[in-house]
Amino acid sequence: MPSNIPEIQFKGYAVHDTKNWTTFELIDFEPKPFEDYDIDIKIEYCGVCGSDVHTITGGWGKPTLPIIPGHEIVGKAVRVGPKVSSIKVGDRVGVGAQICSCMKCEQCKNDNEQYCPKAVNTYSSHYPNAEKTLSQGGYSTAVRAHERFVFPIPSALPLEEAAPMLCAGLTVYSPLVRNGAGKGKKVGVVGVGGLGHFAIQFARALECDRIVAFSHSSHKQDDAVELGATEVVITGKAGFEESLVGQLDLIICTADVSDGIPLREIMSTLNVHGRLIMVAIPNEDLPSLMSSDLSKNGSFLGGSKIGSKKEALEMLDLAVKKGVKPWIEMLSMKDCGTAVKAVKEGNVHYRHVLKMDIE
Amino acid sequence: MPSNIPEIQFKGYAVHDTKNWTTFELIDFEPKPFEDYDIDIKIEYCGVCGSDVHTITGGWGKPTLPIIPGHEIVGKAVRVGPKVSSIKVGDRVGVGAQICSCMKCEQCKNDNEQYCPKAVNTYSSHYPNAEKTLSQGGYSTAVRAHERFVFPIPSALPLEEAAPMLCAGLTVYSPLVRNGAGKGKKVGVVGVGGLGHFAIQFARALECDRIVAFSHSSHKQDDAVELGATEVVITGKAGFEESLVGQLDLIICTADVSDGIPLREIMSTLNVHGRLIMVAIPNEDLPSLMSSDLSKNGSFLGGSKIGSKKEALEMLDLAVKKGVKPWIEMLSMKDCGTAVKAVKEGNVHYRHVLKMDIE
Repeated sequence: MPSNIPEIQFKGYAVHDTKNWTTFELIDFEPKPFEDYDIDIKIEYCGVCGSDVHTITGGWGKPTLPIIPGHEIVGKAVRVGPKVSSIKVGDRVGVGAQICSCMKCEQCKNDNEQYCPKAVNTYSSHYPNAEKTLSQGGYSTAVRAHERFVFPIPSALPLEEAAPMLCAGLTVYSPLVRNGAGKGKKVGVVGVGGLGHFAIQFARALECDRIVAFSHSSHKQDDAVELGATEVVITGKAGFEESLVGQLDLIICTADVSDGIPLREIMSTLNVHGRLIMVAIPNEDLPSLMSSDLSKNGSFLGGSKIGSKKEALEMLDLAVKKGVKPWIEMLSMKDCGTAVKAVKEGNVHYRHVLKMDIE
Repeated sequence: MPSNIPEIQFKGYAVHDTKNWTTFELIDFEPKPFEDYDIDIKIEYCGVCGSDVHTITGGWGKPTLPIIPGHEIVGKAVRVGPKVSSIKVGDRVGVGAQICSCMKCEQCKNDNEQYCPKAVNTYSSHYPNAEKTLSQGGYSTAVRAHERFVFPIPSALPLEEAAPMLCAGLTVYSPLVRNGAGKGKKVGVVGVGGLGHFAIQFARALECDRIVAFSHSSHKQDDAVELGATEVVITGKAGFEESLVGQLDLIICTADVSDGIPLREIMSTLNVHGRLIMVAIPNEDLPSLMSSDLSKNGSFLGGSKIGSKKEALEMLDLAVKKGVKPWIEMLSMKDCGTAVKAVKEGNVHYRHVLKMDIE
C-alpha cells in the first residue's frame, strides 16, 4: 500500500452461530480487493435493521458464518480509488443494503440497480470476483464500496440520523414515490416501527392528503400522530377496516410477521386499482388471499426492494427540507447483541443506532 | 302494457339445488319493473361461463334458488324505455356480467362502473329496488337491462361469436389494456381455456411482441400457437420458468383452480414491476407467496373485474378489425346441463354457446 493511503483495519462484531445470534465476537475480516472505483469508509455509526435479525437467526436461510451484519452505514471516506469522481477523502458518506451490481444491465442503466440480477448485498453476499469475497456489514470499523453505492450525506443531516435512512428510509421512500404518493393521495402505513415511522414521515413530507397508520395495538397511537399520521387504526379490533373500505390509494406494509398482518381486511381499504406494497420480508408465507380479494377493487399486492441511488439522494434532500428524522436509541456498537434482541422482540422506538467503539 | 309493446315471456332454465347443478328446469320469472332507461332483449344466444358453474355449484357461496345463470347474452332489443337514446327496437345487442350500477358514484362517472359498490350482477344479484328483484341470467328467453349495460353488437360480428366476448373477452381485454399490453410488450397468458383463448387473441390483436402461453399440459400446445401464442410453456414440467425469469411485462392468469397455478414460479418470470393479473376466481385461496417472491422483481399480483362499457365497445371494434373470434361449440339451450358439466370438467374447446330453443 502506498504511504499516503491510511492504514485501515477491517474488524467487526460477528455472529458465529445462528443459534447464538445475540452473541457477537470481534473479528478481523478481509474486504474485497481494492479497485479503481472503490471507496473505503471509516464507520462512525450503523443502524440496526430487521434484516440483520432475519439473517443472523437464519430466518432467511443459513448464512455463511461468521457474519457481521449492518447495512445502515455512515462515516467518512478515508481512501478513494483513482476513478472515483463524486467523493473525496474526508467526505461524509453512507452505504445502504446494496454494495455492488453489474453496472451494465438494463436495470443498472435505468436507476433500478437494486433489481440487478447480480446485485451484491452489503453483507452476507459473495462478490463475483475470483476470491468470491464475502461481504461483511457495518457493525465494524470500515466498509469498502463501489462509488455507485456510496451516498454523500448532506451537511445538514447528522450522520447518526442519516444512518437508518439508508435502508429503512429508502425502503419505504422508493415505493411511496414509485406508486404516486403525493398531494391528493390517501396513503396507509401498516406497522409503526423502524420502517413504518419513516413511511409516515415521508408520506407527510410528500404532502399526502391522508395518512392512515395501521397498528396492531393502541400503544403507538400517540407516536403515530406525532410522526404525521392523520388517523390511527387499531387492527386488533374486529371490523377495523369497515369505515375505510375502498378509500386508500396506496398502502406501505412494514409489518414483519405474517400472522400479524390482516391482509385481506387491509386490502379491502384500497380504492380501485390501489396498491399495497409489502416492504417487510417475513420469514413465513404471506397470509393467503382469494382472487376475489383482489378483483372486487382491482387492487394490487406488490413488492419492493430498497431503492435506487437516485432515490436515496432525493430522499436525503427531502429529509433535510422537511425535517424527516428517525427516532433513535443510541447504543455503543459492542452492545449490538442487546440491539438485535430488542428488534426481534419489537421493542425499539424506533431505530437503534450503534456508535463505533472499536479502537 | 300498451298495445304497441310486444308481449315477452320471461322464462329460463333454472337450477333448483346446488347439489343437482346439472339439472335445469324451465321456469317463469319476474324481471325487475320496467323503467325509463330499460331495454328488453329477446335472447338468441348465451355463452356458458366458468362463473355460471361456480355459482350454481355453490362454490362462491349459497345462491338464492332457483337460479338461471348466463351472462354472455346476445339477441335483439324488443322494448326500449322512453329515455333510452343509444338503442332502438330491433337492434342487435348484448349484455355481459353486470346489469346495473348506481350511475352516480366516482367509479360510475369514470368508466369504472364494474367497481361501483352498488353493482348488480346479471344473475344471482338483488336489485336495490323496493321488490329486491332477483336478477336472472341468459339461459332464458329475455333479459331486462339498463341502457348503460347494453352493448350494441357491430354488424360484422355474428351474434353467437359476440356472446362469449361479453364476459370472457372483456374480462381479459380490460386488464390487458389497463396494464399496458401493446407494441414492445411481452405478455404471458396462464391457462388456455375460455378466457385464455381470448387473452392470447387480444394480446395478438394489441400487437404485443411476445405472447407466452402457459398451459399445464402439452395437449393445447397447437391450439395456443394457432390462437397467436409466440411460445408455449408447459407448467407441468419442473423448472419450466427458468428460461423466462425476469422477462414478461404482464401476465393474465385465467386458471380457475388454485392448485393448478404454480404462482411463485410464474411470478418469477415477470420483469421489474411486472404485473400478474388474476382474472379467474377459484373457489379456494390463491397459492401462498412470500414477500420475497414480490420484492426480488418488485412485481405485482393484481385482480380485475370484467371491464367497463367503454372497454367493451373498444373490444368489439378491435375484434372486428383484427378477426378475434371465439372457438365455439354450439348447443341447444336445453342442453345447458351438459354444457356446465363440460366447463366443470375443463372439457370445452373453448366456449359453449347455447342457442335459444324455448318456444
